[in-house]
Amino acid sequence: MDFQGTDFLKNELKKEQELLDIYKERKLNLDMSRGKPSTAQLDISSSLLDELTSTSNFGKIDYRNYGINDGISEIKEVFCDLLGIKSEEIIVSGNASLTLMYDSLQRALQFGVLGGIPWNKQGLIKWLCPVPGYDRHFAITELFGIQMINIPMKETGPDMDLIEALIHDESVKGIWCVPKYSNPQGIIYSDDTIKRFAKLKPKAQDFRVFWDNAYNVHGLYGFDQMLDVFAEAKKEGNEDLFYIFGSTSKITFAGAGVAYLYGSQKNMDSIRKFIGIQTIGPDKLVQLSHARYLKNKDNILRLMDKHADFLRPKFEKVLEILDDSFADMSIVKYSRPRGGYFISVDLREGTAKRTLKIALEAGVRFTNAGATFPYGNDPYDCNVRIAPSLPPINELITAMEIFCCAAKIAYYEKELGVY
Amino acid sequence: MDFQGTDFLKNELKKEQELLDIYKERKLNLDMSRGKPSTAQLDISSSLLDELTSTSNFGKIDYRNYGINDGISEIKEVFCDLLGIKSEEIIVSGNASLTLMYDSLQRALQFGVLGGIPWNKQGLIKWLCPVPGYDRHFAITELFGIQMINIPMKETGPDMDLIEALIHDESVKGIWCVPKYSNPQGIIYSDDTIKRFAKLKPKAQDFRVFWDNAYNVHGLYGFDQMLDVFAEAKKEGNEDLFYIFGSTSKITFAGAGVAYLYGSQKNMDSIRKFIGIQTIGPDKLVQLSHARYLKNKDNILRLMDKHADFLRPKFEKVLEILDDSFADMSIVKYSRPRGGYFISVDLREGTAKRTLKIALEAGVRFTNAGATFPYGNDPYDCNVRIAPSLPPINELITAMEIFCCAAKIAYYEKELGVY
Repeated sequence: MDFQGTDFLKNELKKEQELLDIYKERKLNLDMSRGKPSTAQLDISSSLLDELTSTSNFGKIDYRNYGINDGISEIKEVFCDLLGIKSEEIIVSGNASLTLMYDSLQRALQFGVLGGIPWNKQGLIKWLCPVPGYDRHFAITELFGIQMINIPMKETGPDMDLIEALIHDESVKGIWCVPKYSNPQGIIYSDDTIKRFAKLKPKAQDFRVFWDNAYNVHGLYGFDQMLDVFAEAKKEGNEDLFYIFGSTSKITFAGAGVAYLYGSQKNMDSIRKFIGIQTIGPDKLVQLSHARYLKNKDNILRLMDKHADFLRPKFEKVLEILDDSFADMSIVKYSRPRGGYFISVDLREGTAKRTLKIALEAGVRFTNAGATFPYGNDPYDCNVRIAPSLPPINELITAMEIFCCAAKIAYYEKELGVY
Repeated sequence: MDFQGTDFLKNELKKEQELLDIYKERKLNLDMSRGKPSTAQLDISSSLLDELTSTSNFGKIDYRNYGINDGISEIKEVFCDLLGIKSEEIIVSGNASLTLMYDSLQRALQFGVLGGIPWNKQGLIKWLCPVPGYDRHFAITELFGIQMINIPMKETGPDMDLIEALIHDESVKGIWCVPKYSNPQGIIYSDDTIKRFAKLKPKAQDFRVFWDNAYNVHGLYGFDQMLDVFAEAKKEGNEDLFYIFGSTSKITFAGAGVAYLYGSQKNMDSIRKFIGIQTIGPDKLVQLSHARYLKNKDNILRLMDKHADFLRPKFEKVLEILDDSFADMSIVKYSRPRGGYFISVDLREGTAKRTLKIALEAGVRFTNAGATFPYGNDPYDCNVRIAPSLPPINELITAMEIFCCAAKIAYYEKELGVY
């Protein structure tokens, strides 16, 4: 390792620091922290807002009025076509699938699952969390005081051997999954992984897989097939195990879409009873305009190709910069997602926080280091989530150059023991 | 009471039964059960749907995207003008204030109020329920296993002496109130009642008044003043006691409006932390179109005058029919609301269920007898809630004629001991 002798490292550190100083002079203020669609992507669906006007037909039953708790038939038809399910198997709600997840967990805690003992009355509850994962999932389980257990992600999805071992514990009640283009690594669960999920027999009868298929149709290179876990589970008579979530947040408008929850009719009927008390029904006009705009699966996939045209160059540019910057150094590992909203970068152990601090000093904000782990605690302090979607490409380039520079500085500092 | 001798009663019963038979031949199918606005009322606000189109300005921050958990500033401004509060004191959410109530109760159960012990961990929890009241309120407290205590309503609002006595019990944690045009009696809480609420000092520090001001601007004869409980509570340093709810459901679209919760900044800041985890934010486009359409308090009041023009003749017709039918009989008592959505009728004790069964046999459905009481249990079996808003006036007349006929039959049967 002579080429990485102290003098060499010091020299390299100085070079990168000088480079960073040049960026600092530009007084940048760039935000790479959030997986938001860009304005151009939101503009794709602007005509959705023309679907309903003062002169529209508002449905056979007037959808402006009260009634219908689990979604109008028109939007259910669209999602049933998209998801290959029956209308009894879906509940369509407001704009946030996160709320459906939060509420499903809260219901299980307060009332139990399908008549079981409320989780609130079962002592300590545990939850499996594939890592790295989605910070907002972890925030929910943390809020409820549920003990989160890290499950390492592999190329094929979460470590199934570990999951199959841990579910012998009756206090383990669930797992967060983002099965397609996982947040943040962009991994698609393999057929084998999904088949093992479909066959899962947890000790706890009230165990539920929270299957957040947020990026179902969000491919960068067309629609990638993934095995249908719900269909597989039905073959096993195991369909009650799954709560499956999704939304149009990254299909139409991120903050003003339509969210859904689907699963066995038994699960859905049970949930319908509670939402019949919790609400006077979802906003049916938003559902109607979505139904008229989205039409069917084919049309949705065409729409997603337009999103991909905006996203793909950004993802490829990020990867290109990472490739170029670290071509002759093995200090980083990163994913090459075929879809989703993130690129996951593993830096050298113990340098993620420092890297992002240096980047922030140069005017670029990234998602906090650790955010992709339960309790914000990345045990190796190495994972960083890159969100390429929002910034214009010129900002993205600058931000990534600064990121690479910062990662190298943090690495050299660590090697030299100066930080 | 000679004129009500057995022969007289039998004769009257026969007359009414013959009248009912004539109605039955018409094979009617009328629904008087629901407090829904009519199509004509929904049409008032149709142009709300023209406020946002594909070519609109979507706000300084693009409201189509993620972000902002407690409502956009534009809609807060409208409600602050309407309610005389500050923007820090309000949270604006989705379309259902019922969900805000359900969620507020669930949060108190799961997490406690302002850092207090979760209600779930405090044993049996009790709740005060002015009766008759709103069935959907009672459904929530019943679902959570909270013991409901009936509080009789007076002309001035709920029996404050009883409330002030019962709140010495620390397990009494809250009360449902519909302070203006109460559901179903249409009572406006008096100044004295509101001042006593503002001064209330429950033993339980985590007691909360769920003040559902659903009909704040829903006068039939212009805007009626009611003392502002929140302002009064502030004078007493007691503002943390109130969660105040409302929505535009009966201002714009019943199923597609905007709901809000307001109260002390301390309460709201606490709730914001939870909704920041529960949701990615409300549908901000619906809020934006509402803000642009509603504009300010004056404009809202003008809008409500248009609603009143549709509602007033219906309310007056119902009262006219009741007046005419029971002019020479003291077997009913009913309210004469100046606003809201209901007329409450107290029939002779023990005849409400029977009356509605007879009416249903003649093709008219009313809200179930008992629905206005906790557990669906009207101890006197006398109260019926009439909802005049939805049916066209000709149907309303027929339905009310049948109701009066049915009430008389039930009364005569009871007097004769034949049912």
